Amino acid sequence: MIRLGIVGATGYTGVELLRLLVPRDDVEILVVTSRELQGTKVAEHFPTLRGHLDLAFCGPDDPGLYDCDAVFFATPHGVAMHSAAALLEAGVRVIDLSADFRLKDRFSWERWYKTKHTSPELIREAVYGLPELNRDSIRSARLIAVPGCYPTAIQLGFLPLLEKNLVALDRLIADAKSGVSGAGRQAMEDYLLCEASESIRAYGLSGHRHHPEITQTLTQVAAKPVHLTFIPHLTPMVRGILASLYAPLDVGVSLCEADLQSIYEARYASEPFVEVLPAGESPATRMVKGSNKCAISVNYFRETNTAVVLVVEDNLVKGASGQAIQNLNIMFGLDESTGLKGIVLLP
Amino acid sequence: MIRLGIVGATGYTGVELLRLLVPRDDVEILVVTSRELQGTKVAEHFPTLRGHLDLAFCGPDDPGLYDCDAVFFATPHGVAMHSAAALLEAGVRVIDLSADFRLKDRFSWERWYKTKHTSPELIREAVYGLPELNRDSIRSARLIAVPGCYPTAIQLGFLPLLEKNLVALDRLIADAKSGVSGAGRQAMEDYLLCEASESIRAYGLSGHRHHPEITQTLTQVAAKPVHLTFIPHLTPMVRGILASLYAPLDVGVSLCEADLQSIYEARYASEPFVEVLPAGESPATRMVKGSNKCAISVNYFRETNTAVVLVVEDNLVKGASGQAIQNLNIMFGLDESTGLKGIVLLP
Amino acid sequence: MIRLGIVGATGYTGVELLRLLVPRDDVEILVVTSRELQGTKVAEHFPTLRGHLDLAFCGPDDPGLYDCDAVFFATPHGVAMHSAAALLEAGVRVIDLSADFRLKDRFSWERWYKTKHTSPELIREAVYGLPELNRDSIRSARLIAVPGCYPTAIQLGFLPLLEKNLVALDRLIADAKSGVSGAGRQAMEDYLLCEASESIRAYGLSGHRHHPEITQTLTQVAAKPVHLTFIPHLTPMVRGILASLYAPLDVGVSLCEADLQSIYEARYASEPFVEVLPAGESPATRMVKGSNKCAISVNYFRETNTAVVLVVEDNLVKGASGQAIQNLNIMFGLDESTGLKGIVLLP
Amino acid sequence: MIRLGIVGATGYTGVELLRLLVPRDDVEILVVTSRELQGTKVAEHFPTLRGHLDLAFCGPDDPGLYDCDAVFFATPHGVAMHSAAALLEAGVRVIDLSADFRLKDRFSWERWYKTKHTSPELIREAVYGLPELNRDSIRSARLIAVPGCYPTAIQLGFLPLLEKNLVALDRLIADAKSGVSGAGRQAMEDYLLCEASESIRAYGLSGHRHHPEITQTLTQVAAKPVHLTFIPHLTPMVRGILASLYAPLDVGVSLCEADLQSIYEARYASEPFVEVLPAGESPATRMVKGSNKCAISVNYFRETNTAVVLVVEDNLVKGASGQAIQNLNIMFGLDESTGLKGIVLLP
Repeated sequence: MIRLGIVGATGYTGVELLRLLVPRDDVEILVVTSRELQGTKVAEHFPTLRGHLDLAFCGPDDPGLYDCDAVFFATPHGVAMHSAAALLEAGVRVIDLSADFRLKDRFSWERWYKTKHTSPELIREAVYGLPELNRDSIRSARLIAVPGCYPTAIQLGFLPLLEKNLVALDRLIADAKSGVSGAGRQAMEDYLLCEASESIRAYGLSGHRHHPEITQTLTQVAAKPVHLTFIPHLTPMVRGILASLYAPLDVGVSLCEADLQSIYEARYASEPFVEVLPAGESPATRMVKGSNKCAISVNYFRETNTAVVLVVEDNLVKGASGQAIQNLNIMFGLDESTGLKGIVLLP
Repeated sequence: MIRLGIVGATGYTGVELLRLLVPRDDVEILVVTSRELQGTKVAEHFPTLRGHLDLAFCGPDDPGLYDCDAVFFATPHGVAMHSAAALLEAGVRVIDLSADFRLKDRFSWERWYKTKHTSPELIREAVYGLPELNRDSIRSARLIAVPGCYPTAIQLGFLPLLEKNLVALDRLIADAKSGVSGAGRQAMEDYLLCEASESIRAYGLSGHRHHPEITQTLTQVAAKPVHLTFIPHLTPMVRGILASLYAPLDVGVSLCEADLQSIYEARYASEPFVEVLPAGESPATRMVKGSNKCAISVNYFRETNTAVVLVVEDNLVKGASGQAIQNLNIMFGLDESTGLKGIVLLP
Repeated sequence: MIRLGIVGATGYTGVELLRLLVPRDDVEILVVTSRELQGTKVAEHFPTLRGHLDLAFCGPDDPGLYDCDAVFFATPHGVAMHSAAALLEAGVRVIDLSADFRLKDRFSWERWYKTKHTSPELIREAVYGLPELNRDSIRSARLIAVPGCYPTAIQLGFLPLLEKNLVALDRLIADAKSGVSGAGRQAMEDYLLCEASESIRAYGLSGHRHHPEITQTLTQVAAKPVHLTFIPHLTPMVRGILASLYAPLDVGVSLCEADLQSIYEARYASEPFVEVLPAGESPATRMVKGSNKCAISVNYFRETNTAVVLVVEDNLVKGASGQAIQNLNIMFGLDESTGLKGIVLLP
Repeated sequence: MIRLGIVGATGYTGVELLRLLVPRDDVEILVVTSRELQGTKVAEHFPTLRGHLDLAFCGPDDPGLYDCDAVFFATPHGVAMHSAAALLEAGVRVIDLSADFRLKDRFSWERWYKTKHTSPELIREAVYGLPELNRDSIRSARLIAVPGCYPTAIQLGFLPLLEKNLVALDRLIADAKSGVSGAGRQAMEDYLLCEASESIRAYGLSGHRHHPEITQTLTQVAAKPVHLTFIPHLTPMVRGILASLYAPLDVGVSLCEADLQSIYEARYASEPFVEVLPAGESPATRMVKGSNKCAISVNYFRETNTAVVLVVEDNLVKGASGQAIQNLNIMFGLDESTGLKGIVLLP
């Protein structure tokens, strides 16, 4: 029985961790914290958990966290970096869903997140929790930085092309569409039903925090600098990310669509949560809603010698809480799919 | 008083023509046809017109069409090409919202539309009804091919870059997102609320009929072959198109964002329906819903030396019926904005 | 030219007033106020007004208000009651969209709105601005209390039955469904797209402020106490109210559906904004979206001897700003429909 | 291991049965039939089942059905009545999600369904599969008529009041709101996203087939004739039913809200899938989406002496496939909740 804690479980990634963890027999949730809701029953805040979880929120520094085998941080950025060191020292492994340990370049992190980093020494130790790339390091990691929602989809979509050295690295494009839950449960005018429904728009044109995270991984994989145009779009739906990736093939590279299809199928053949779709099939976000699956369609346009890779995921599952649990499973030597095999609701 | 007919007014572009034309004092709607609804009151089929229009549908070949000054075709492709010649001969001007006369290359048209063209001699005469490009020819045209919804947005977005010779013509990208009304009022499973809501997906991966239409215009403007990757996406909303355009600048071209902004502002300064947004503002489709306006945001990404142009329009207005009426206004020497000045509903 | 002011025009009823008033030639908007946005261009706050209105927000006590012929209050409750007296004294007519002058019983108002009323002497003078009931008093009124959104639909639905003395007054039921815009533009968690979409729920079970307003009018019309069960429901859409009204017929009353239909048709025969639908037709909220129309369907169920009246309106138009303008038109002797004849967008 | 067949599994209730049954270890799906898709892999038709189910559709009369322990019919009405007898004779138990065996009055069935009933002798044997009412008969039943979606919610909401003899039976009202999936996966214009989104409307005003089903049960429970006004509404969401029930208390009955609350809590205390909400809480359909739970809120309005009961369920789960499986569990002596304990996705 693995004992778990969740810090800051009042938002969407928190309740998603609970949805996926509560039914399991091999883990026990010891502590769930919330600064504001301390003392309130979790199931009172999230009625969907009624009859499933009989725990009340503790304070953020509850000592029970130190009795856990692992603690998830489902907090805004700037929280985990304060608490991780003490937990690690006490032998508790930390899985951070926030951005605190994602960027290896501390100064870049401080620029993008406008905060001084308080645990720079842990940045180096933290393992970037993308199992399809870093499975081995995850196994023995003490501290996991769970990738962001956009980075997960975009990195998984570009990886095979970069590993095979097929594309022009200076002009990659990621046109990504996200549901509104990506903004979290914050009461902001922009995310009201009356403002966000029946409309689509781009945002983050002056730069998005996921940009350096994406290129950090892509650059590492390509072993050369990678330049990316990344435009996220707010889409009138609750869950889901569709990343439409455009990669001009390198001059001299000559491929047919079937070659690309084979490269992707081979790359992800043994991945439990990456599904390369049959040629010609286009992925819809609803096909992965509530699931940890990432579905990829590979296409090639001869006229422009461009690969177009379409990737869908649920931003709250493979893009956050599901991936965090996938990391947990790997860290504790469990079947990687444990608790993540649910079938998607349709329609 | 301009006398008007509408052929095939039972779909979304038909009712949109009526919404925009019925309140006008300077036009009179003589004939509205429908093969299936012959004899039914138009306002019975479209309750929104009750109290506004007291006309019944006529048959598709109603002689009243020949008493009109202009006739709109709001039909599927393959209808207007059969009837246009006789109307033109009778002195009736024809404004075709379908694709029949959009492609100058008859054989390309026949390949994409899988039909033999029955009026090839009219293809040459037809004027492509994009006022921002062809205003002068529209004035005296007898036969207008109203541009498609995607082509309108994408062409208006690329025009200034191509006219100024700024971009690499071999790798343009248009990632376009359309509301479901783009599919018309056809009872198909894919467009059911239960199938199309709460999800986004790409489609037309093997080629979309608007592709040759877009590149025909871009090639003409650039006076050189233009190669485009065009990926349309079905978005969970009723109306609106957002086209996110990616144009790598030509090697050697060195520009700042302000230059691009000026180029667009200058190009469209006197256009009544193209609004170049202030720098840094991102257009949302709901800001043009129900309006004939096309709003454009110009952005430059130094890292990839790429211009990113974001264009929104209402696919049923500037992308169809509104633009058809803009053409009508030009053809008959009226103020181009007549009947097209309504303020958008918010929220 | 009627000179107008709008106090507190930053919310949904404010922008709706502007949408409907700005295109008119017979009115001039002199002043638009906002405490927070003083100095900002109105069209910067509401981009849909760009190119249509070139005014900046003034402060809430701008002296320009005293140069107006009429001033609208599109404010939360508790604002108009402070400013109305001075404006009236200066000869400015006041049209209040808030609740300040709706309830004739000052103490009831103070209980429901949890505020001391500062202008009790004006309560008696204020005319309840439901033209279908009070048209004559509206003509000469100095101060109009524009009815709430639910009350408008529910009162118009019940009026003919009560006037004809047909129903049991002790057990009326109004099951009302409203779009989310009824909650205004407030950044509250409950109205986020992620919380309010894909779900329906009742609210206000312990009492809704519109309840006393509804029964005040019904009691006045029936000239006897009326008892109503009123349950509002939050519906996953932006605009629209559907009120499903259930009225058990009085013992002894024997009617067929055709009788009821005739009663409603006769009652509303000359009303420009109430449409009694043909028997058997069911009204959908989208059929009146953006319009000042209220559509009513009358049904009779023999098994339970119950009349079921279905009423739809746009909560922001006939339920607020449109009705306010209808009052303006009546007060100034204009055609009642001026500026309110737009055709509904479909789809 | 219970061997199962599903006849007609191409619609929404079919895929919902599969979603809930496929992950189970104690059942095996032998046969899934479809007339049109015979030979096609089920997971090709429903991509959400990829990697979960490796079966192809058989023809509708596949002999494999006779090897099953139980067969579900997820067909339109008029199919099960032809096949049930032979299956029962072969010892196969039948769980019919269609309406074929719901009405005990054959002639009423024939009137409402406009078809001659071909198995009148089985009507009497069929057990109406509402476990909260008929659990004992379900245990030994050979043939189950699974209740309709509206009837399940409305009957569960009224039961305690009728059993306690508290309400006036001649004037019950059920104002029910359903998501669009209630209409099934049929490609009809009315259910297109462009027609059904952003709008609410009543339908079935001339009578709905679920009406006689509802009153049959209510009359049986009350042991007196029950008269009901039932108005269903099409709500712009995919899944969910909210039934708002209005029951005038009998003259002479004097109750407080707490009494009603206790009556409901007592009635459903041991029911695994009926949750009586804490007093004052209002149920939202999204709180039961994908779950077999039915949540009930009990309210009392003194002014009209009326009980208002709010009931939510997922129309495809407790209103169809989940309830069918609950019946299966009871029939085969399993824990009634087996396979039905999943936690609801939020948001």
